[in-house]
Amino acid sequence: MALYVKKFGGSSVATTERMKNIASRILREKHDNDKIVIVVSAMGDSTDDLLALAGQVPSLRHGREMDMLLSTGEQVSISLLAMTFKSLGAPAISLTGMQAGVFCSGTHGKALIDDIKPERVFSELEKGNIVIVAGFQGVLPNGDVATLGRGGSDATAVALAGAMHADVCEIFTDVDGVYSADPRYCPHAVKMQEITNIEMLELARLGAGIMQPRSVELGMHYHIPIHVRSTFTDDEGTIIQEECVMERKRQIIKGVAQDTHTARISVLNVKNVPGVAHMVFEALADEHIDVDMIVQSVQRSNDDLTDIIFTITDTDLEDARRVLGELQSQEKLTTIIYDDNMAKVSIVGAGMLGTPGVAARMFGALGRVGVNILIVSTSEISVSCLINRDDVAKAIQAIHKEFWGNKTA
Amino acid sequence: MALYVKKFGGSSVATTERMKNIASRILREKHDNDKIVIVVSAMGDSTDDLLALAGQVPSLRHGREMDMLLSTGEQVSISLLAMTFKSLGAPAISLTGMQAGVFCSGTHGKALIDDIKPERVFSELEKGNIVIVAGFQGVLPNGDVATLGRGGSDATAVALAGAMHADVCEIFTDVDGVYSADPRYCPHAVKMQEITNIEMLELARLGAGIMQPRSVELGMHYHIPIHVRSTFTDDEGTIIQEECVMERKRQIIKGVAQDTHTARISVLNVKNVPGVAHMVFEALADEHIDVDMIVQSVQRSNDDLTDIIFTITDTDLEDARRVLGELQSQEKLTTIIYDDNMAKVSIVGAGMLGTPGVAARMFGALGRVGVNILIVSTSEISVSCLINRDDVAKAIQAIHKEFWGNKTA
Repeated sequence: MALYVKKFGGSSVATTERMKNIASRILREKHDNDKIVIVVSAMGDSTDDLLALAGQVPSLRHGREMDMLLSTGEQVSISLLAMTFKSLGAPAISLTGMQAGVFCSGTHGKALIDDIKPERVFSELEKGNIVIVAGFQGVLPNGDVATLGRGGSDATAVALAGAMHADVCEIFTDVDGVYSADPRYCPHAVKMQEITNIEMLELARLGAGIMQPRSVELGMHYHIPIHVRSTFTDDEGTIIQEECVMERKRQIIKGVAQDTHTARISVLNVKNVPGVAHMVFEALADEHIDVDMIVQSVQRSNDDLTDIIFTITDTDLEDARRVLGELQSQEKLTTIIYDDNMAKVSIVGAGMLGTPGVAARMFGALGRVGVNILIVSTSEISVSCLINRDDVAKAIQAIHKEFWGNKTA
Repeated sequence: MALYVKKFGGSSVATTERMKNIASRILREKHDNDKIVIVVSAMGDSTDDLLALAGQVPSLRHGREMDMLLSTGEQVSISLLAMTFKSLGAPAISLTGMQAGVFCSGTHGKALIDDIKPERVFSELEKGNIVIVAGFQGVLPNGDVATLGRGGSDATAVALAGAMHADVCEIFTDVDGVYSADPRYCPHAVKMQEITNIEMLELARLGAGIMQPRSVELGMHYHIPIHVRSTFTDDEGTIIQEECVMERKRQIIKGVAQDTHTARISVLNVKNVPGVAHMVFEALADEHIDVDMIVQSVQRSNDDLTDIIFTITDTDLEDARRVLGELQSQEKLTTIIYDDNMAKVSIVGAGMLGTPGVAARMFGALGRVGVNILIVSTSEISVSCLINRDDVAKAIQAIHKEFWGNKTA
């Protein structure tokens, strides 16, 4: 007997036909005494349809009411999926976030899960039901429904699995696992059998889109393994968990990530006195612009001037131009160069902690294919290089070949 | 200052444009300190859309899950209506049936309201909000959502108004009030200013479709006046309340109702011994066939035989034929005549209690226009006549002329 929490996204439940496919698969794979909890998102484009309805009302900040509206999307999919199971002869029951005991707090539209009290889920499982829970939603202390924002359904599934001490939380998705690199850039990318949640978190932070960092953090908090796998095939996917001893021995670097939405700003010839860098970064912070990589060049011997170079997300570039332009017009800064055609490639792996020369191998691989490294930054388990965006595919392929050879998936 | 509960049906909130019209009207009519609670149904055809989705799943009895599905319809309309009020600058908040404290019990799909605990509604009104409540739904003791079945949104509104001691419950509808007769049959029908809830209940029971009996009963239980009025005009409608002294003096008969879905069954030449009528009606009751009017003819002097004649709803006629046909084949009954082209016309008025000759005036009016009366039944405040369905318009017009003259609305 095992307790499984399985999460299916909107495209997996877009039609009643697809729901039937999911339900049939789950029943086929289920052992007699297995207990199954299913977390689902809203059907396909239904959230967009609800947003379009709301868009007909002159726009205001509709936090609470928008959540009241959007949360119906999951309520529709859970009830239809429960009907589907019942039509296949399997007892099933749907529960809203509130009924499943998903307690949250914070802002409407991006509430955070505070606590899970899954008494009702347990009691329905005891009765022999497959329990279908609405993802993406929870209840606030005042009894109002709130939505959990981006990655909210994954978060529901992982937190529920954690609170219920499930054997595993399975995230069913369009891709069949976590790859060593983005297959769009790197045809030789290999699917990982497992990865530590620390590594997955670092990959997510550095641009690997498959899981939101919040779900990986919840998995760490609750010590629950997350199995990322395909809705459309029966293949094993990738397991995200605390320890992957087997893998660590084999592979120092777990994955390559890229962020192609990077812009570089070079503030040149600033006086090398205390407070100048602070002035620049405070002005950006006031406008909620996050700064990522930062380099301040060593002082040039022949004058008292230095350069500050940093990266931001390219969608913030317009705002940054305005903020820094103001400082320029006040003659607090002189020359600024903006470059929005940058990308960041990173390698991630807990194994590099005890292995010297990993960064050097990465730089060497890039150098051999003529990719210029503009900025480097490192963490304990990652190395990131800023490069020209046009070089991304070449860079990823070179790095991947260096650490994985050319073996195929 | 007054507390109003206003209920709007699905066609009144079918589009965001109509919601804007409703909201504008409510704000225009609202005095500064008025407190407003609005109960709404699902938008236009949205319930049918949800039913169509459920219809794609092989059919089973989906009580609980169907309620989970259908209750989203009202949740969409309340949130959009709250947004609409806010976009017009008026603070507003939406509440589900559960949040509004609508506690119910019984069967999914046709739950009954047990109790209203409107604490949250009061506290939101105190904060200055217009409170928008989902009709047609409540919460069961186990926390599950249940729908209230036919007339459920009206029931929500009336019960809420009663529990909150509102000044009035306004039911906004496609028609502008309760008429003395159905205007489709009787062009001279007049709109009533007021009617007692006992009379309204009798009219509803006898076929006047404007209000479900359950809402009228709730109004009686809670001693709350119900104002039936038009969504589309500002005219006063009809007030349903406990006492209508002014009206009673003027008008003995309040209204004429018709039921055009009546079928007559004549069981002829049955032995006039105890137990025969019981056998017939028990067989019908076993199939959930309601019997309405019943006549057993006086015993004929020359033999020991009698006739039993009764009416049922014509949609039950097929089932009745089967049940009675079986008794025939067992030779327990001999001759049975079925006639599905019948109608029942009724007059209702509390005033007839102390006024002799009312029934006679009705029979006279029908006789003068050549309408044959087949069965008569009476209650304390009504007289009903079974007639041929083709005579309905002629009958209603004649009765109306008898009691109202030919004055126009």
